[in-house]
Amino acid sequence: MNPISFKHLATDGRARRGEAVTTHGTFQTPAFMAVGTQATVKGLTPPQIGETGTEVVLGNTYHLNLRPGSERIQRLGGLHKFMGWSGPILTDSGGFQVFSLSELRKTTDEGVVFKSHIDGSMVSMTPERSIQIQAELGSDIAMAFDDCAPYPASRDEVEAAMGRTHRWAERCLDVKRPAHQALFGIVQGGVFPDLRRESAGCLTQMPFDGFALGGLSVGESKDEMALILGDTTELLPKEKLRYLMGVGTPADLVLGIGNGIDMFDCVMPTRNARNGCAFTSEGKVVIKQAQYRDDESPLDPDCSCYTCHTYSRAYLHHVNRAQEMISGTLLSLHNLTYYQSVMNGARQAIEKGQFEAFAAQIASIHGETQPILETH
Amino acid sequence: MNPISFKHLATDGRARRGEAVTTHGTFQTPAFMAVGTQATVKGLTPPQIGETGTEVVLGNTYHLNLRPGSERIQRLGGLHKFMGWSGPILTDSGGFQVFSLSELRKTTDEGVVFKSHIDGSMVSMTPERSIQIQAELGSDIAMAFDDCAPYPASRDEVEAAMGRTHRWAERCLDVKRPAHQALFGIVQGGVFPDLRRESAGCLTQMPFDGFALGGLSVGESKDEMALILGDTTELLPKEKLRYLMGVGTPADLVLGIGNGIDMFDCVMPTRNARNGCAFTSEGKVVIKQAQYRDDESPLDPDCSCYTCHTYSRAYLHHVNRAQEMISGTLLSLHNLTYYQSVMNGARQAIEKGQFEAFAAQIASIHGETQPILETH
Repeated sequence: MNPISFKHLATDGRARRGEAVTTHGTFQTPAFMAVGTQATVKGLTPPQIGETGTEVVLGNTYHLNLRPGSERIQRLGGLHKFMGWSGPILTDSGGFQVFSLSELRKTTDEGVVFKSHIDGSMVSMTPERSIQIQAELGSDIAMAFDDCAPYPASRDEVEAAMGRTHRWAERCLDVKRPAHQALFGIVQGGVFPDLRRESAGCLTQMPFDGFALGGLSVGESKDEMALILGDTTELLPKEKLRYLMGVGTPADLVLGIGNGIDMFDCVMPTRNARNGCAFTSEGKVVIKQAQYRDDESPLDPDCSCYTCHTYSRAYLHHVNRAQEMISGTLLSLHNLTYYQSVMNGARQAIEKGQFEAFAAQIASIHGETQPILETH
Repeated sequence: MNPISFKHLATDGRARRGEAVTTHGTFQTPAFMAVGTQATVKGLTPPQIGETGTEVVLGNTYHLNLRPGSERIQRLGGLHKFMGWSGPILTDSGGFQVFSLSELRKTTDEGVVFKSHIDGSMVSMTPERSIQIQAELGSDIAMAFDDCAPYPASRDEVEAAMGRTHRWAERCLDVKRPAHQALFGIVQGGVFPDLRRESAGCLTQMPFDGFALGGLSVGESKDEMALILGDTTELLPKEKLRYLMGVGTPADLVLGIGNGIDMFDCVMPTRNARNGCAFTSEGKVVIKQAQYRDDESPLDPDCSCYTCHTYSRAYLHHVNRAQEMISGTLLSLHNLTYYQSVMNGARQAIEKGQFEAFAAQIASIHGETQPILETH
């Protein structure tokens, strides 16, 4: 029996509407996963995560390995029990974080040695270790450990990282996993269409349960991302899930869906929330701006989340200015609800064969939205 | 019609069990009020506050006057609507904060001029202004503006502050309030029993809806507090509510209840929660301690709050160490639930005539608990 089953329900152009079943429950696709880096979606309890319509949560192997440690989480009953989230969980492989967050890394074919951001100790990560950690965490979907080239990088650098990613992919598949755990491969190749095609061609020969596109939304232009997306997803098997990692704005989501992507994750809805920035059906709202000081209207008149049906913009402005914890919580509740409403809208539009119009509408509202960087 | 009605249900020695009815709902006494200084109980949504068993929330006139301003809150429909809490609200008068938090204050018989902690501007507060602010906030119970002598202070200083508190009390009563709003007087007199008696005697001649004891739990010994409590409450009318301001530890609560107090408020359950300190049926738990790193047991085995029925101490240790927002939220949920369970236990014990044994049990668990100071 497969650890994950994926059923097509509808298509509209390249856009796909489906349903995925895991041991810990079902999720509808296209799906947006809330990021729960350190075994918590920042500022929200699991019931609040559920309230937003979120069905899948992502945990970070890099962070959980350093603290509190995956063996500890295993002893305590696994990540689901540990963090109080009984629904599906996907864990990343730590690859992206090792290559982007950590200092003093040394990469060889064996793996990567890096300096912990917590205590400065040297930590080793290999394909085998990454899969072992994810097995201990007990997620429903594990990701292969990949070599992420920086952006921009030369073609030679990208090609070398891709080749290593393929060799590591085979090693990942050789490690024993829990029976309930699926494993996805990660297509690399940067912004070079021929390398992406080569990567997709190589990885789809391996028995992965799904495929991700890594190394996008890292600084390349939207046109470059669109080109790679359309080009690569065409080479992926239709019967398996496709995941665009770390993406993105609402406009990015509909771009991905329109190119056949089924799954997304991004810190933007929760990180921007903590920085006082809301995504709404009327575009971006930076709640600390003085214009909202006396605004009696809800954050988003079209939203039915707890924040929007309880509070005025004036209140949200106040708690943001007063640096109250509730500010991040209430805006995270809203932003995740908004993201999930975009996904739900996309699913309905695909079923009705109206995805193109829906995507154009979302892109016109959010076309200019740029990520806000963490301020602390 | 009185803005607040108070019904005795049972007594046990000096301890009283009752029920208070306001326009915004009923609360059981003895009652513990959660502190919502800046129009939010830090880290909790109103449904979460309700989950803890909390029935009354306290708002701070000093803070809300400076930001966002009481006129603004009035325009936005009043404090209940603004902060999304539909139950009873008590507002303090700002007296304690003006005398303890603010800089550069100048006190005359007219009132106090102080420097705002937000923008450094000079702000004036008088008895009339305090009542006006509270009227604009629209709380169910307003407090008279009092002159709080520091601790320690000479008898002359305490006597002068008490005299001024009495003159200010009359001026507070002369200000027009909303029909639904009760007004409580505040007994001062420091640790001098004869001054406390004089203050109680003077204020109870005035038409207040209830009486508070101010200026306790400010550094005096437990014995001094106990003496003042027992002595003063005897002089307060039995048919009106009695409120011990800013108190305290679980042991302080049962001390107060045993001396006839009906209402309490304190930042300890929520502030200590944010600092990783939990009150439990087994005593204090400082969750960041290494001993909890692998502890599979709940924070408090006797507690049915969301935190205790969902998480291990090991998880709470992890999110505290990782400085995750959820740490403060989960411990606040628990600590307030624990405080409310103490109040509920006290109410049941009074009904059964077993309050003395209950109080001794709580005091033996928490006798040594000291407040933890805010670290930021």
